[in-house]
Amino acid sequence: MKPGAQDELVFLPLGGSGEIGMNLNAYGYGPPDDRKWIIVDIGVTFGGDQDTPGVDVIVPDPGYLEGEKDNILGIILTHAHEDHIGALGWLWPRLKAPVWATPFTAALVREKLRERGLLERVKLTETPLKSRFSLGPFDIEYVTLTHSIPEPNGLAIRTPLGLIWHTGDWKIDPDPLIGETTDVAALEGLRDEGILAMVCDSTNVFVEGVSGSEGDVREHLIGVLKQCRGKVAVTAFASNVARLETTIRAAQACGRVVCLVGRSMHKVTNAAKSVGLLAGLPEFASEDDAGHLPPEHVLYLCTGSQGEERAALARIASGDHRHVALSEGDTVIFSSRVIPGNETAIYALYNRLAERGVEVITDKDADVHVSGHPCRDELKQMYQWARPRIAVPVHGERRHILEHVKLAQELQTPEAVAPKNGDMIRLAPGKALVIDEVPAGRLYVDGVTLIEADTDALRERKRIATEGVVTVVMAVSERKHTIVTGPDVRVRGLTMQDEEELDLALEELADVAEAAFNRLKHDDRANDDTAEAGVQRAVRKAAEKMWGKRPFVEVVLMRV
Amino acid sequence: MKPGAQDELVFLPLGGSGEIGMNLNAYGYGPPDDRKWIIVDIGVTFGGDQDTPGVDVIVPDPGYLEGEKDNILGIILTHAHEDHIGALGWLWPRLKAPVWATPFTAALVREKLRERGLLERVKLTETPLKSRFSLGPFDIEYVTLTHSIPEPNGLAIRTPLGLIWHTGDWKIDPDPLIGETTDVAALEGLRDEGILAMVCDSTNVFVEGVSGSEGDVREHLIGVLKQCRGKVAVTAFASNVARLETTIRAAQACGRVVCLVGRSMHKVTNAAKSVGLLAGLPEFASEDDAGHLPPEHVLYLCTGSQGEERAALARIASGDHRHVALSEGDTVIFSSRVIPGNETAIYALYNRLAERGVEVITDKDADVHVSGHPCRDELKQMYQWARPRIAVPVHGERRHILEHVKLAQELQTPEAVAPKNGDMIRLAPGKALVIDEVPAGRLYVDGVTLIEADTDALRERKRIATEGVVTVVMAVSERKHTIVTGPDVRVRGLTMQDEEELDLALEELADVAEAAFNRLKHDDRANDDTAEAGVQRAVRKAAEKMWGKRPFVEVVLMRV
Repeated sequence: MKPGAQDELVFLPLGGSGEIGMNLNAYGYGPPDDRKWIIVDIGVTFGGDQDTPGVDVIVPDPGYLEGEKDNILGIILTHAHEDHIGALGWLWPRLKAPVWATPFTAALVREKLRERGLLERVKLTETPLKSRFSLGPFDIEYVTLTHSIPEPNGLAIRTPLGLIWHTGDWKIDPDPLIGETTDVAALEGLRDEGILAMVCDSTNVFVEGVSGSEGDVREHLIGVLKQCRGKVAVTAFASNVARLETTIRAAQACGRVVCLVGRSMHKVTNAAKSVGLLAGLPEFASEDDAGHLPPEHVLYLCTGSQGEERAALARIASGDHRHVALSEGDTVIFSSRVIPGNETAIYALYNRLAERGVEVITDKDADVHVSGHPCRDELKQMYQWARPRIAVPVHGERRHILEHVKLAQELQTPEAVAPKNGDMIRLAPGKALVIDEVPAGRLYVDGVTLIEADTDALRERKRIATEGVVTVVMAVSERKHTIVTGPDVRVRGLTMQDEEELDLALEELADVAEAAFNRLKHDDRANDDTAEAGVQRAVRKAAEKMWGKRPFVEVVLMRV
Repeated sequence: MKPGAQDELVFLPLGGSGEIGMNLNAYGYGPPDDRKWIIVDIGVTFGGDQDTPGVDVIVPDPGYLEGEKDNILGIILTHAHEDHIGALGWLWPRLKAPVWATPFTAALVREKLRERGLLERVKLTETPLKSRFSLGPFDIEYVTLTHSIPEPNGLAIRTPLGLIWHTGDWKIDPDPLIGETTDVAALEGLRDEGILAMVCDSTNVFVEGVSGSEGDVREHLIGVLKQCRGKVAVTAFASNVARLETTIRAAQACGRVVCLVGRSMHKVTNAAKSVGLLAGLPEFASEDDAGHLPPEHVLYLCTGSQGEERAALARIASGDHRHVALSEGDTVIFSSRVIPGNETAIYALYNRLAERGVEVITDKDADVHVSGHPCRDELKQMYQWARPRIAVPVHGERRHILEHVKLAQELQTPEAVAPKNGDMIRLAPGKALVIDEVPAGRLYVDGVTLIEADTDALRERKRIATEGVVTVVMAVSERKHTIVTGPDVRVRGLTMQDEEELDLALEELADVAEAAFNRLKHDDRANDDTAEAGVQRAVRKAAEKMWGKRPFVEVVLMRV
């Protein structure tokens, strides 16, 4: 296929370029008024902090692509981490494109679609590792890499205007334990073909050296476990099946039976077994059975390494777990890292465990964790293998992406761009260039609704969270516009030194509201909006003085 | 003075034993029914996360000591960090005891009392370094140590039942730049006298080695600054006057004029100058003047190393600062550490600076910061100097305190206790023992009010923050108990895909409320509480179904 005269090849990140998490990348091909699109990955990030109270999951705003819905040829998933597949269930109904994934990823995606009632509607093609298929002008080939999950793939995306090497998440693990090592031959083949652009992971661009190997972790974890006497709990990211296998084998080597604790552990081990992983290992003990084993014969493999309140480990640490109890002489091994933002929750967990006399071992005490992303030496190696004409760093905060551009330039990459979410970058023909900025942003999963990041609703919630709310209700006569009953004043989120003081404050606010209403002109009293606004202003001012805070004031007039 | 037969010496921490921050320690002496008390330090910690929305400052609950108000002989301050003096303005009115502090600390305390209108009421005694004075059965001596602030003092507290060595915050800095080095002779003197108990800083008990010296930081900072070309901003904890002096001298060495940016910088430098520190240094430039200097001749010394939203550096990074603008070729040096919990805010700052092309240098890139607290080797040295009979670790989370107990035991300290806030520990006579648990906790500064940590008010705010609020108002006839107007339903913090859908939802909730009210028996309708509760239940259930959330439902019946 030859490129048409008007054809362009564009890259459009809508998530992940400016944050770690929530990856959504689109590639467009064709004349500007008739592009065909493929989407690579569609992930989530997590909320719940003071900026997003009540919002657990955040997805990229696919608004621009929704408008291009009929031109989306497919959604191609590189691997099964939540920041790459988690938004599929939420956003698929808006995009309705067919989906491709390798077997392990497909197993977890199916689970996800089932939960959202979409399993029957989504056309999901399970495709083997190293497979190759065409979608319109795009020719897509899965290339095997290594990462902290089974089946990590990069994508070679061939188009009439050039070849894109989309790395997905990767590292160079010489001993990944599960799956093959990095397919260097394939990479060198791509290089020989000529790589127009490499769209590449930036997570660890500030970390010198290499990330280390799952093989080394196995060795160290066995060493640590051999020293343990009582019960042991190991917490790890459930999706790291190699790490789970390591823990299971380490347990076996030390005469311990493994008991899985936490929903994701079961979900991932089931998915892994469904594709032939974790075969030939001893059976797991149920939580109930494990409780009856001698302490030195049991190992709990737990969720909750990030201090998540409802996860297994937090409940164990609080003594709230139905089946698992740890105490003096027992050990918890965090085979994980501290994700920035989770420090407070994780340290609280350490404290609760320490209080029970449980020894805590983390990656600071022993080499029981390695990162899944490439450090600087691995990035350099990848540039040497791939030798792209254009470097396109993604998967990072702004500082990571800018640093990655500097690194690519130092490595003599002819061109490098620093994409932001929403930048439409023309990769060919001509020099790489931002040719458009399309709307990009975040949608919040709020209960069962997807809401915009800047809704009044969320602003109101945050305002009330910090300032409280005053509700003023009064019944007003329909004809004379005078107060019949009330004002009745209630506060939520505000208090005083004692009940009596609070009662006095509420009475005072009622007086203020009444006076404010009565001060209004007859016509203003007749108009609900004007009257409510007038009362609101007066009550807010009085409340500010009382509490030194700026509460939200809700005024309701009832006409009777 | 000889001890009476009934006399006991007790230690009671009410803050800082179980958290880093918010230190409040009390020592009691006398028979159990007539103890005299001194308080050592009275600090704050900071809130504002999702657990404490709208609460910036948190203070220890002094409830128990309030009951002992008439027996409190004094409040003695070891040094001027906020976690040691910050609560004085909030809690003094409840305790009303005289206060002692060394000159620099006193200068900052006066400022604090002035702000709260207490300057005229508090008896504040400014006492020289190494001074000694008596308060009833307590004989108190200030001992010079080193820390990250001028005038760091430990206290030798002599009582008829033994000598307590209260370290306060300390490190062993062989070259502190400001003030003398650790008064080893005094410590050895105390040891020879015989130390009953050492109440000691646990912050860095998990960190091997030593904390390092301010002198080394000076050398490294000058080295880093010499490499800088454009404008430079250095951010540091304002209270670390040695660090400020280092920055000023480094600037001088590189031909740069220093401009202070941020309120605390001015407050602390004024306090420092008032006690003779920072003398003989070049004048500061005003922000306005600095703006007119060539970039390579200016150095901004800024607040905001923790990413605080309203501090100087955050405003500079956002391009919102009136006088200071940084761009490509400029450098920001973080001469500070990341306090756990502030990662997200600090990384956001890095990203905003990187986006402007500003180079960011942190303590990960160069040795431009040292901790002010003792690492393990320094702790060992202190135990060697002091050789207490009882180790009483404070100033740490639970895990730090428990680890410190282990360390003290390894160092052959005969007794070690792990105090929790509220534990009343008898130090003499007899073995150290928790003899009572008194109420301890936190009070939240909420606007102008001090509220309890577990008030309904805060629970309501957190509930509304995550779930939203539905307000239902109806006017009901006084006699027949039938609905006259309404229900009028409003929501805050909840939304739908579009306005229309939201209007429909509100109508449905109104129908639910009406039906629920009408379903009530006559007597229940006649009773406000029962009727409101009935309507609330029904509306909550319906709202849960609509939004997949559990909103707070406020029902107001108006009788007309």
